[in-house]
Amino acid sequence: MIILRSIADTRAALDSWRRRGQTIALVPTMGYLHEGHMSLVDEAKKRADRVVVSIYVNPTQFGPNEDLDKYPRDFARDEACCRARGVDAIFYPDNAVMYCPDHSCWVTEESLSQTMCGAARPGHFRGVTTVVLKLFNITRCDVAIFGRKDAQQALIICRMVRDLNVPVEIVVAPLVREPDGLAMSSRNKYLSDDERRRALSIANGLNQATALFAGGQRQAAALCDLVKTGIANAGGNIDYVVVMDRDSLRPLATVDRPAVLAVAAFFGKTRLIDNVFLD
Amino acid sequence: MIILRSIADTRAALDSWRRRGQTIALVPTMGYLHEGHMSLVDEAKKRADRVVVSIYVNPTQFGPNEDLDKYPRDFARDEACCRARGVDAIFYPDNAVMYCPDHSCWVTEESLSQTMCGAARPGHFRGVTTVVLKLFNITRCDVAIFGRKDAQQALIICRMVRDLNVPVEIVVAPLVREPDGLAMSSRNKYLSDDERRRALSIANGLNQATALFAGGQRQAAALCDLVKTGIANAGGNIDYVVVMDRDSLRPLATVDRPAVLAVAAFFGKTRLIDNVFLD
Repeated sequence: MIILRSIADTRAALDSWRRRGQTIALVPTMGYLHEGHMSLVDEAKKRADRVVVSIYVNPTQFGPNEDLDKYPRDFARDEACCRARGVDAIFYPDNAVMYCPDHSCWVTEESLSQTMCGAARPGHFRGVTTVVLKLFNITRCDVAIFGRKDAQQALIICRMVRDLNVPVEIVVAPLVREPDGLAMSSRNKYLSDDERRRALSIANGLNQATALFAGGQRQAAALCDLVKTGIANAGGNIDYVVVMDRDSLRPLATVDRPAVLAVAAFFGKTRLIDNVFLD
Repeated sequence: MIILRSIADTRAALDSWRRRGQTIALVPTMGYLHEGHMSLVDEAKKRADRVVVSIYVNPTQFGPNEDLDKYPRDFARDEACCRARGVDAIFYPDNAVMYCPDHSCWVTEESLSQTMCGAARPGHFRGVTTVVLKLFNITRCDVAIFGRKDAQQALIICRMVRDLNVPVEIVVAPLVREPDGLAMSSRNKYLSDDERRRALSIANGLNQATALFAGGQRQAAALCDLVKTGIANAGGNIDYVVVMDRDSLRPLATVDRPAVLAVAAFFGKTRLIDNVFLD
């Protein structure tokens, strides 16, 4: 496994694979890898001859009052995880490699990004689409794997690829949970033991709502209320609990088409997101 | 020479060239081709094995009160010009091919695009960068050729390529003039005989300013005033006459570094642009 720190080295290494006719899958991450990321690596290995994991805590997707500085980082552990899982290369740039001092070009998505995490975190998705397009252009990957925990992000990336004709196939892989149901996230590290226990109310609420939906409930408000009550009872601070059309991310009053029930809530200072599909 | 109307056909044709190891140059145009465009084709032929000309009057770079509807179009003539000049393919999409009804992703440049034509034509450069990135992604060209008449556009495209790590080499080819000095432009067709004669004041003013600069004048105001006076005396309606730093497009009071003296002016309803470099 090779560690690539510069764009020139990355292009040279990946071009040499391409010249041998090998296809390349990219797994973009911010590091502090967990089993959710590793499931993306497994998916990548099925889809291409070579797997590149990018590890970059992208500053442009963090707001001024967010957790950029304290976002967890452990490159040695990430490197070991990738090596053990059969990753071919890690692209591990620093900020000077990724952004010129007079950087002035951005990719913006102006519809799907207006709601949910986009409404709560202004500029977040502009940072995401910009850095992801940069990573696609640097690696010229054939396929890229994203996790469904960030459902809105995955939808926005798919929209970017469609609208800008980006020649990359996007695969959205299933959400991976801890044994007790908590959606895996690098930010779970922030949780105290008590917060960790109470945060389970998110996954439990989504489970109960899924059961209610399976039982025939089609009113979005009833499904959301169930989730909200559980989180509130556990002392969580709700950012949003919404039922959205799964293509347009427009709110649904009645679940009469493929939908996503999505949550963002704080436990302590930690913002967690989770979602289930309603079919 | 092949005419490509769909993205799938374009990708298939260009992939077959790539598989044979051939490189591809793109000349993006809005059609109604003139000798300025053809000089870009000549440059493209020097730079790559295959030359693709795109012909697309991109609606998203026109403002609501601009000349989208009456922009001159003559595909039969364009096709003959390209065939005669040895172009390999024309990519000639319609709007439905280029933009989905719910298109929502854009490429924006937020520094260089704030002045000159960007100030006069809000949204213009967002349309340009977006469509150019789409054309790059559709063709996956190795190199793309732009004309220096649109000096600000060329600079913004170079910035986009840098900031988004677009794997395309940008070549900016010299401005081509009519025998009497008028910068070639598809929009020259709009000019009446009288306007055409009076519009020469732009190129004449730039020539005089170049001579003044060569004679030692370094004050931007003096250079601009000379150009402004000539255009005003010819009955032109000036949008801007500016001297800008050639890298940052920031205005210069004193020409103490590579600069561009750039003009936009109306003759009748026709907006013309032109520029000279000051070295």
